[in-house]
Amino acid sequence: MNMSKIDQNWRADFPIFAAHPDLAYLDQAATGQYPQTVIDAMNAYMTTANAPVHRGLYKLAYDATNQFEAVRTQVAAFLGAAHAGEIVFTSGTTAAINLVAQSFGPLVVDAGDEIIVSVAEHHSNFLPWRRLAGVRGAHLLIAPVHADGAIDEEWVLAHISRRTRVVALAQETNVSGACLKQARAIADAVHQVGGYFLLDGAQGIAHNNVNVQQLGVDFYAFSGHKIYGPSGIGCLYARAELLLEMPPVTLGGGMISEVGVHNVSWAPAPERFEAGSQNTLGVVGLGAALRYLQPRRQAMTVHCAALTQQTRAALAVIPGLTLYAHPEAAATLSFNLAGVHPHDLATFLDEQGVAVRAGHHCAQPLMTSLGVPAMLRASLGAYTTAVDCERLVTGVQDAAAFFQVAAR
Amino acid sequence: MNMSKIDQNWRADFPIFAAHPDLAYLDQAATGQYPQTVIDAMNAYMTTANAPVHRGLYKLAYDATNQFEAVRTQVAAFLGAAHAGEIVFTSGTTAAINLVAQSFGPLVVDAGDEIIVSVAEHHSNFLPWRRLAGVRGAHLLIAPVHADGAIDEEWVLAHISRRTRVVALAQETNVSGACLKQARAIADAVHQVGGYFLLDGAQGIAHNNVNVQQLGVDFYAFSGHKIYGPSGIGCLYARAELLLEMPPVTLGGGMISEVGVHNVSWAPAPERFEAGSQNTLGVVGLGAALRYLQPRRQAMTVHCAALTQQTRAALAVIPGLTLYAHPEAAATLSFNLAGVHPHDLATFLDEQGVAVRAGHHCAQPLMTSLGVPAMLRASLGAYTTAVDCERLVTGVQDAAAFFQVAAR
Repeated sequence: MNMSKIDQNWRADFPIFAAHPDLAYLDQAATGQYPQTVIDAMNAYMTTANAPVHRGLYKLAYDATNQFEAVRTQVAAFLGAAHAGEIVFTSGTTAAINLVAQSFGPLVVDAGDEIIVSVAEHHSNFLPWRRLAGVRGAHLLIAPVHADGAIDEEWVLAHISRRTRVVALAQETNVSGACLKQARAIADAVHQVGGYFLLDGAQGIAHNNVNVQQLGVDFYAFSGHKIYGPSGIGCLYARAELLLEMPPVTLGGGMISEVGVHNVSWAPAPERFEAGSQNTLGVVGLGAALRYLQPRRQAMTVHCAALTQQTRAALAVIPGLTLYAHPEAAATLSFNLAGVHPHDLATFLDEQGVAVRAGHHCAQPLMTSLGVPAMLRASLGAYTTAVDCERLVTGVQDAAAFFQVAAR
Repeated sequence: MNMSKIDQNWRADFPIFAAHPDLAYLDQAATGQYPQTVIDAMNAYMTTANAPVHRGLYKLAYDATNQFEAVRTQVAAFLGAAHAGEIVFTSGTTAAINLVAQSFGPLVVDAGDEIIVSVAEHHSNFLPWRRLAGVRGAHLLIAPVHADGAIDEEWVLAHISRRTRVVALAQETNVSGACLKQARAIADAVHQVGGYFLLDGAQGIAHNNVNVQQLGVDFYAFSGHKIYGPSGIGCLYARAELLLEMPPVTLGGGMISEVGVHNVSWAPAPERFEAGSQNTLGVVGLGAALRYLQPRRQAMTVHCAALTQQTRAALAVIPGLTLYAHPEAAATLSFNLAGVHPHDLATFLDEQGVAVRAGHHCAQPLMTSLGVPAMLRASLGAYTTAVDCERLVTGVQDAAAFFQVAAR
C-alpha cells in the first residue's frame, strides 16, 4: 500500500496529535477532534466575553448576544437557509430530530398515516419516528438498503403516497457512508402529496455542500462535534412557516412572551424552542468550527475520499474480510473479519494505537438486516494521514494472522 | 460605605477580569464567570483526551468514558446521593425539570390531583408543572410569598393533602434570594401522603451544602454555569427507584439495550435518559467547577453574604429605592428606583461599568403578584469585591440624582 501521493492533511491543526503523536484516530464519525482555532475561540469567549445571552442590558451581555446570534446567521448561510430565524440551537442532532418528532409530528401525523424511514437510520432518526407512529396509530414504513449499503431510494419514491406525512432519511448513513442521491426528487414527491421531508445531516454535513432550499428539505439536523466543533451543541433547520406552527417541547426561561398564572403566550421561533440558558460556549465553538470547515470542506472531502478508496482496496484483499461500506463512501470503512469478534479486533487494533469503533453503531435494525450483531468502523477526518490508514491495514492483516482467519 | 474589611475574594482566579479590569460584573445569578482552573481542565480535555464516551473500545475512549463517569460519581458525592446511577446529565436545570415533568409526571399525576409550586418559581419550575397539570386535568396550587420575598412554607405545608402528587419549589429563589427553611418538613409531609418533592437548586447549589438524602428530596436539579462551570450542562438527581420507572423522553443512540424493527428495550438509568452524544466537554468542565467550588463554597458564601448585607444597607437608604431581596439573601439584591424604568437604570449603570440584570427575571407570576413589570437584580459571586458593590451603590445614587427621584 503506497499512499505517498496523499500528503496533504490538516493534522497540525489538531493539538491532540501533539499529545498522542502515534495515535491513528479513526473514529471521526463518532466524535471529531478539536482544531486549535476552535479551542482558541472558546478560550477567548471564556476569558474575555462570557455573559448571559438575551438576558442582559449591559455591554458584555449585548456583545455575547451578538456573538451568539451571529453564529445563528452563520449557520443559516452555511445551510443556505432563507434567514437566521429558521435555525434552532439544540444539544445535538438527536435533540433536533426529537424536537421535530415531538413538536411537529403530532400536528401532521394521524391514525392510518405513514412515516417513511430506512433500515439504515441511526437510532436517533428511527426511534423518535417509531414512537410517533405508535402514539398516533400511524404506520412506519422502513425502506431497505441495497447490497452496497445505499438506501433504496426507488423504494422510498415508490412508497410515497397520499398517506405519507413524513419522510426522514440520513443524508449519509453512519455505517455504510452511502449518500442519498435523490434528495430533491424525494422532497418533491413528498411535497406533492402534502408531506414533509427531514434530512439527518449528522454525517453528511462534513462531506457535502448543503443548501436546504435547493435540496427542498423541510427539516435538517446536524451536530457540532462531528464537524470539528464542540460536543453538546447542534442545530435544527426548519422552514419558517413550519416553525411558526410548532409548539415548544421544553418549557422555561427565555421562550415566552408573557406568563400569567393562568395563561401563557410563547415567544416567536426560534426562541420558543430554546428554553433556559443556552450552551453559549458551544455555540461560539460551533461558529469557529464552521469558519474552519467551510472553506476547506471540499479539499478535506477529496482528501478523505482518496484515502478511503485506497484503504478500502487494501482491506478488500485481506482474506475473510467483508466490507459493509459503500464503494463511494467519503470517509467510512465498515467491515468484519470472519471468525473474529469485532470487539476483539478493535481491542487488537487499539494495542497497535489504531482507534476504531466496534459495535452496532446505534443502527441495530441495519445490523439485523445484515445478519451481524456488530462490525468495525474506521472513519476518517481532515487530520487522517496515509500512515494512519497503513497502520489500520497492517493491524487488520496482523489480526487476521493472529486470529488465524481461514481464507474464504 | 466602608467595605474595607471584606478584602478576601477570588477575583484573581477569573481571567475575564484581566480583560475587563474595570468591570463590576453583578450578574452571577444569570451566568457565572469561568475560573482559570475550569478553562484549563476543558483545554486539557480538548487537547489531550477528547474521544467518544460509552462508544469506543480503545484506550482514548475508555479514558474519556472514565473521566465522564468520574464526574457523575463526583456529582453524586457533591449532592450526597446514594450512588452515581442517580445522576442524569442534562443540558441544564431547565432540561432536568422538564424531564421530570414529562417522564415522571404522567406516571403519578391524574385528574383531580394537585401539584404545588410557588409564585416565586422561575418559569423553568413553573411552566412544566402548569402544562402537566393541564394535560392530566390536575390542579396547580401556587403558594404565595411573604412580604420579605420568602416562599410561604406554612401555606405549602397546610396545602399538602392526599391529592398532592408533586411539590416543586426553588431551594433559593432567583429574585429575592430567599432560601427554603423547611425543605425536610415539606419532604416528610409530601411523602406521608404518597407524593414527591422536587427541589430546584439552580440558585441554591452555589450557597448551600446540599445532601439530597438528608433533605429527603426525590428530585434535585442544577446547572453548571451558575457555579463557575460551563454553559450547556446540568444535572438531575433522582432517587434510583423513581428513575427505574421513568420512560425516556428523548430517543436516540446510547440509551437502548436492543432495538428491533418492532420492539425496543431501554437501557437502565441513567443512560436511558442520555440519548445521543453527550456534552462531554461540559461534563469535564462541570467536574472542574465542582473541584473549585466545593472546598471554597462556605467561605465564598460568607464573603458574598457579608458584601450583600453591607450593600443592602447602603441601597436601603437611597430615597425612592424599594428592595425586593430577602433580608438574608446570600448574594441577591433585587430592587427598583421609583420613577425610573429598570431598563433605563440598568443602562445607566452599564455606562458606569456596572453590569446588573433588569427585567422580569423569568418570574412573571412573581412580578405580577408584586405589581411591577420588572426590576433590577444585582447578584454576587466569589469574584465580587467591595469596590464592585461601592460602584453599584454610587451608580444607583447618581442615577437617583440624574433621574431626579423624589424621596418617598
